[in-house]
Amino acid sequence: MVQQFYVDAALRSRDAGFDIIYVYGSHSYLPLQFLSPYYNKRTDGYGGSFENRSRFWIETLDKVKRAVGDECAIATRFAVDTLYGDGGIEVEQEGLRFVELADPYLDLWDVNVGDIAEWGEDAGPSRFYKTGHQLPWQRFVTAVSKKPVLGVGRFTDPEKMAEVIRSGQLDIIGAARPSIADPHLPNKIDEGRPEDIRTCIGCNVCISRWEIGGPPMICTQNATAGEEYRRGWHPERFPKAGSDDSVLVVGAGPAGSEAARILLERGYTVHLVDKADKVGGYVNDVATLPGLAEWGYHRDYREFQIDKLLKLKSNKHSQLALGQKAMTADGILEYGAEKVIIATGAHWNKNGFNGLTKEPVIGADADLPYIVTPEQIFEGKKALGKKVMILNADPYYMAPSLAEKLALDGHEVTIASGVSVGGYMEFTLEHPNLHRMMHEQKIEVISDVWASEVQEGRIELYSQYGEGSVRTYQGPGNLPRNANTTHKWHDFDTLVLVTGRSSNVGLYNELKARKGEWAANDIKDIYLIGDAWAPKLIADATFDGHRLAREIEEQQAQYPLPYKREVHVWGQAYIPGEDHSIKYQE
Amino acid sequence: MVQQFYVDAALRSRDAGFDIIYVYGSHSYLPLQFLSPYYNKRTDGYGGSFENRSRFWIETLDKVKRAVGDECAIATRFAVDTLYGDGGIEVEQEGLRFVELADPYLDLWDVNVGDIAEWGEDAGPSRFYKTGHQLPWQRFVTAVSKKPVLGVGRFTDPEKMAEVIRSGQLDIIGAARPSIADPHLPNKIDEGRPEDIRTCIGCNVCISRWEIGGPPMICTQNATAGEEYRRGWHPERFPKAGSDDSVLVVGAGPAGSEAARILLERGYTVHLVDKADKVGGYVNDVATLPGLAEWGYHRDYREFQIDKLLKLKSNKHSQLALGQKAMTADGILEYGAEKVIIATGAHWNKNGFNGLTKEPVIGADADLPYIVTPEQIFEGKKALGKKVMILNADPYYMAPSLAEKLALDGHEVTIASGVSVGGYMEFTLEHPNLHRMMHEQKIEVISDVWASEVQEGRIELYSQYGEGSVRTYQGPGNLPRNANTTHKWHDFDTLVLVTGRSSNVGLYNELKARKGEWAANDIKDIYLIGDAWAPKLIADATFDGHRLAREIEEQQAQYPLPYKREVHVWGQAYIPGEDHSIKYQE
Repeated sequence: MVQQFYVDAALRSRDAGFDIIYVYGSHSYLPLQFLSPYYNKRTDGYGGSFENRSRFWIETLDKVKRAVGDECAIATRFAVDTLYGDGGIEVEQEGLRFVELADPYLDLWDVNVGDIAEWGEDAGPSRFYKTGHQLPWQRFVTAVSKKPVLGVGRFTDPEKMAEVIRSGQLDIIGAARPSIADPHLPNKIDEGRPEDIRTCIGCNVCISRWEIGGPPMICTQNATAGEEYRRGWHPERFPKAGSDDSVLVVGAGPAGSEAARILLERGYTVHLVDKADKVGGYVNDVATLPGLAEWGYHRDYREFQIDKLLKLKSNKHSQLALGQKAMTADGILEYGAEKVIIATGAHWNKNGFNGLTKEPVIGADADLPYIVTPEQIFEGKKALGKKVMILNADPYYMAPSLAEKLALDGHEVTIASGVSVGGYMEFTLEHPNLHRMMHEQKIEVISDVWASEVQEGRIELYSQYGEGSVRTYQGPGNLPRNANTTHKWHDFDTLVLVTGRSSNVGLYNELKARKGEWAANDIKDIYLIGDAWAPKLIADATFDGHRLAREIEEQQAQYPLPYKREVHVWGQAYIPGEDHSIKYQE
Repeated sequence: MVQQFYVDAALRSRDAGFDIIYVYGSHSYLPLQFLSPYYNKRTDGYGGSFENRSRFWIETLDKVKRAVGDECAIATRFAVDTLYGDGGIEVEQEGLRFVELADPYLDLWDVNVGDIAEWGEDAGPSRFYKTGHQLPWQRFVTAVSKKPVLGVGRFTDPEKMAEVIRSGQLDIIGAARPSIADPHLPNKIDEGRPEDIRTCIGCNVCISRWEIGGPPMICTQNATAGEEYRRGWHPERFPKAGSDDSVLVVGAGPAGSEAARILLERGYTVHLVDKADKVGGYVNDVATLPGLAEWGYHRDYREFQIDKLLKLKSNKHSQLALGQKAMTADGILEYGAEKVIIATGAHWNKNGFNGLTKEPVIGADADLPYIVTPEQIFEGKKALGKKVMILNADPYYMAPSLAEKLALDGHEVTIASGVSVGGYMEFTLEHPNLHRMMHEQKIEVISDVWASEVQEGRIELYSQYGEGSVRTYQGPGNLPRNANTTHKWHDFDTLVLVTGRSSNVGLYNELKARKGEWAANDIKDIYLIGDAWAPKLIADATFDGHRLAREIEEQQAQYPLPYKREVHVWGQAYIPGEDHSIKYQE
């Protein structure tokens, strides 16, 4: 009966006009659950020996093939090594035996590795895996199979792709994440302009949204991902400038550089200024963290595109001004631009202010010699002691990344954390290897705590569950949370505050307070984007810049236009006469 | 501008025909973020003093009121105490001051407590909070306000509701979870049959699906929740029996008792048999765990309804047979029923078999005197030593509940866990108080480990992150996961195996193997439901029984009929001419 489900689905797919039908078996899908002894504990004809465990998959391929005839090709996706050693499928053992067995029943192999418990071993984040990391397994299949073999591997570089094909390791390159970052990846190769490819940085933020299960997909590199229909955003086409306004963009980080890029594409006169000597802002720091070098592609793409756009005749009045003195409100008011975009980023809090208590930590002050913020570590001007304590309230990468960096530099590192360390990285598939790294680097974690006070060389921590009892109330007038908890001092040489970020919003606030002077200076509006609006993911900051640049003619361009809404209609598969094709913004 | 969003939404609501418009401020919604000093750090006219922090909310109420005029009542939901002590809103301080201030601007108060960080302090699970636990706060508002005051509090008992109203603690009772468990709660009170109320057990499984964000809502008590439209299931009406078939139900646990109840409602002749002396199965054990007594309402409802249904003349050939000898395949074949439902439940694995390694644990055997399963603890026949180690691979309540029970009995308890202890309880809102309980009871947790071997008095654990390095591969032929890890022995007097459950499927498999004998014994079909089909949530087991009883006339009734699918239609709010009203199964 279950095999009939496959046949029915294949027939429906054929009738709907598809050319290739997958009997999907990777990521621990049902066929692999039969094949792998890790899952299959049956004692009937579908369990036990290799032949028995193969039976379900082979029979299903055969039934699907017979049902759809020659009208469709049959493919199967196969994790040729489940990476469990001999408890699962190993390529040189049953992996290749299955390839030989199934080869006559299909027209195309799609080969990967790993299983669902650690999907990150397949969709590897750049932090741990480079392009093509599955090739050592995939090429075995290409050597054994008589059918074409397709493989993914975060392939973004056309030279690398060509080499993989020429050397016979794969017959077809698959690219999912690289196509999210740049849907025009194949076109750009075809048109001979590989330098325009918006290279996937391998951060897996796209996957994180899938893993969470609810929010729409986003992409750090591509702000148009998922916005094609609902906002009408084409990834490579932009509406012409709606006015002659010139735009001053203050800050060339993710938000500012993306805003400038899109405005230049649209033909606006843009001045992009930054104190730093380089486009990229926060990304320039982040990309120096262990394993995150590829995140620098985010900066590289914008740096290159802005440079290229500035060479266009139509942009002759635009400019990129790096290494500038910090802009002042006076300077901006007198600058001569009709519109101003403030993208001045954010900073890590120097006083321990955090999202847990919404208060600073007593005694925390990164102006003291023994306390540092992440920025101060990036700057490298402050001496760090042997024993480093990281006080963490950030659920993403900063605390574990700094811990890794410092441990590699020879420090003894402890993370005292009020949130799950790297908790969000469960969704980016970085979590298991992150914890293996922490285990290897002997990074100690003190969980479920927060700090009550810092003194030189020591920090006082208390358990977040430390009321000494289940939280109960007899009514009003009770003790505040944590009143009864035990506090305990821990020693350190240097304390790192990863407690939260705050916007660099002083400049914007000053301009806002002087709104009365805008008109006299021919300023029509001033906008706030990216981390300067509110600290956020690099993907979201990039989106901010992109979105504003698309909508800058709108009257309240600070706030996004509404987009077409998804509506749930029950029991209705298709609405005749309705046109749901994508209408791109022109 | 943001206040205008409220006004616009209110006008749309009025135009759509609504009578009451909420300016919602509980659960840390925006108005409360202005009011509470925990969130509000502003230095302008909307931050600082109580008057300034109140301003946003009061202005918004005023603007909404002016916009909709007298056509709609204006309500506000207000967490009168955020339970942070003086860092937030306290009822006797700013809570009541705000009630006095806002009272003239609205027509109805909806009062609760707590904030979004610990929503479980408001939507309290029965494990920690009883009916009406917010009353000590709510009644303050009723005393101060000149407007009617509504409050929730998992109110299920009409007597208690009446008492709360009569004593002036509240003016209106709100009931969300109790209405999910029984949408006809008000009708049943109105009709004078409170004994028919399907009482909410306060497990918060409904909320868990909301918290996860993806899957449809389910209810442990009410299998029709969310199925009204897509399956046409009315919560109180059932289609008449589609045949004269008699049905034997083996097992009176959640699945079997629900199947029998619905079949009796439909007019089938049903024999429900169980070895136990009581309806309820697994629930009878679970309800003895600390704080879970209310889960017994699940059993009570079915016990009472089945008893009542059996008294109907139309059910005179039906019967409930408890305390029976275990049914054998022979006994079932000869029983005389045309259809047989096997609902024999599941058991905790005695050999340490678990979902992490998909293998038993070497040396684990609950037939040994120093190793027990949860069932053996419930039975109470085995002596437990002072020092108890719980080996856990279950992400829900069993390990922490047994730990609490044993700690309360004076044992020293350690949980060695390969999964997050009570991880699913983050979604049921039980997590923070669960961890406070564990902290109070000095229950030690050894995280991120699994067991390699058990010997008398000791267990060998290894780190799940323990390859000694980030997981890397040079290609095939690598070490299996965990090969390089450090193993360490830990002492215990008694070891509890909470490693996984397996179906009691022997009886069904024997019957299936003797399918050739069914026809000769006038058996048309035999079905498998609940934990006996696959171990699952009580809610899902209940659903299994309900679903089969609704569809038992279908040819392949073992498998659910397809339901109406939700379809995403973009940019389309309403389809003229389409009828999307609920069509209940008749």
